[in-house]
Amino acid sequence: MLDNCVTRRGILFVVSGPSGVGKGTIRSALLAKMGDIQVSISVTTRKPRTGEVDGGHYFFVDEKEFERMVAEDEFLEYARVYTNMYGTPKKFVLEKLQEGQDVLLEIDIQGALQVKNKMPEGVFIFILPPNIEELAVRLASRGQDSQESITRRLAACKYEIEQVRHYDYAIINDRLEEAVKKLQAIITAERCRVKNLNLGCDIT
Amino acid sequence: MLDNCVTRRGILFVVSGPSGVGKGTIRSALLAKMGDIQVSISVTTRKPRTGEVDGGHYFFVDEKEFERMVAEDEFLEYARVYTNMYGTPKKFVLEKLQEGQDVLLEIDIQGALQVKNKMPEGVFIFILPPNIEELAVRLASRGQDSQESITRRLAACKYEIEQVRHYDYAIINDRLEEAVKKLQAIITAERCRVKNLNLGCDIT
Repeated sequence: MLDNCVTRRGILFVVSGPSGVGKGTIRSALLAKMGDIQVSISVTTRKPRTGEVDGGHYFFVDEKEFERMVAEDEFLEYARVYTNMYGTPKKFVLEKLQEGQDVLLEIDIQGALQVKNKMPEGVFIFILPPNIEELAVRLASRGQDSQESITRRLAACKYEIEQVRHYDYAIINDRLEEAVKKLQAIITAERCRVKNLNLGCDIT
Repeated sequence: MLDNCVTRRGILFVVSGPSGVGKGTIRSALLAKMGDIQVSISVTTRKPRTGEVDGGHYFFVDEKEFERMVAEDEFLEYARVYTNMYGTPKKFVLEKLQEGQDVLLEIDIQGALQVKNKMPEGVFIFILPPNIEELAVRLASRGQDSQESITRRLAACKYEIEQVRHYDYAIINDRLEEAVKKLQAIITAERCRVKNLNLGCDIT
């Protein structure tokens, strides 16, 4: 039997892209359709909000513990956002992969490139905006940003989009449903990769 | 606009696997679902059957022309089957790829490995039987083969299945519908590969 002996290591899927491109929405829509993938849980120093439990949305730690984890190289990536620290714990991801579970990590570009340095065997997927102007509209319609801030972020965004060259796949987020289908296809395809399969028993 | 400027070269998809594994059925089922892929058309020295037109199912040539094409390296692969010659014409495939069309080639393992030598940038997909015994049943149920012939072919099949290591993807043909979905996912995913995209205008 091949069926019974095709085992597979877990695969790390990193979904990334510029701010405002809709990667969080794509991730949520994917998880609603696909049950058999483990979301990476971040470590953060920010305080839990009402209803948040440790090990659910986040692992909550204090600054001292976060610094210890940085010092002992326990993160695939980490970053400061305003006054809080966020990081992706290496141990959690590696454990899930060793159990044969695929792990999904949705993260900004700087973080994704850090992860790629540590785990180049991951599958790196870049979400592209349909066009740069569209992204400006999206950023503006959030209503949180001044015109100057939008202009600055657009320039940063153009630079960020160029980073697509470091990724394995690119998906244009034109229509959400199409983008999710493509992400699902990439996950299905990567699960069929010969290098990810362990075709053991009957074939030797 | 990214939409308008994302051009893509065509991709060569080679679907292959042992005799009797069901690769022809998978190909037909795929083509019924997916219109935007060009099937490779073989050159053959066998006589057209009723209803077959030149350039439709096959390009029909005489032996002398076939030999000329071999001599001038015009095949991606070729083989003798009983008294007839069959080959995959390089020019036809390359023209379609240059036009940005994807090409699907369904072929036995020996042929696929010849193609890989000439076009390693192709995407090589191996169809696996759910188990070797199942393949024996399939071969036997064709009713064309003696027990001795089946035994011999099974030994050859085990050797052939080991060739999966030269391929990019493996699909177990357990349930046809699932196998076709996986093939479709692989095609969709490969179309999203950054190395296959030409992200031109707006992002530089």
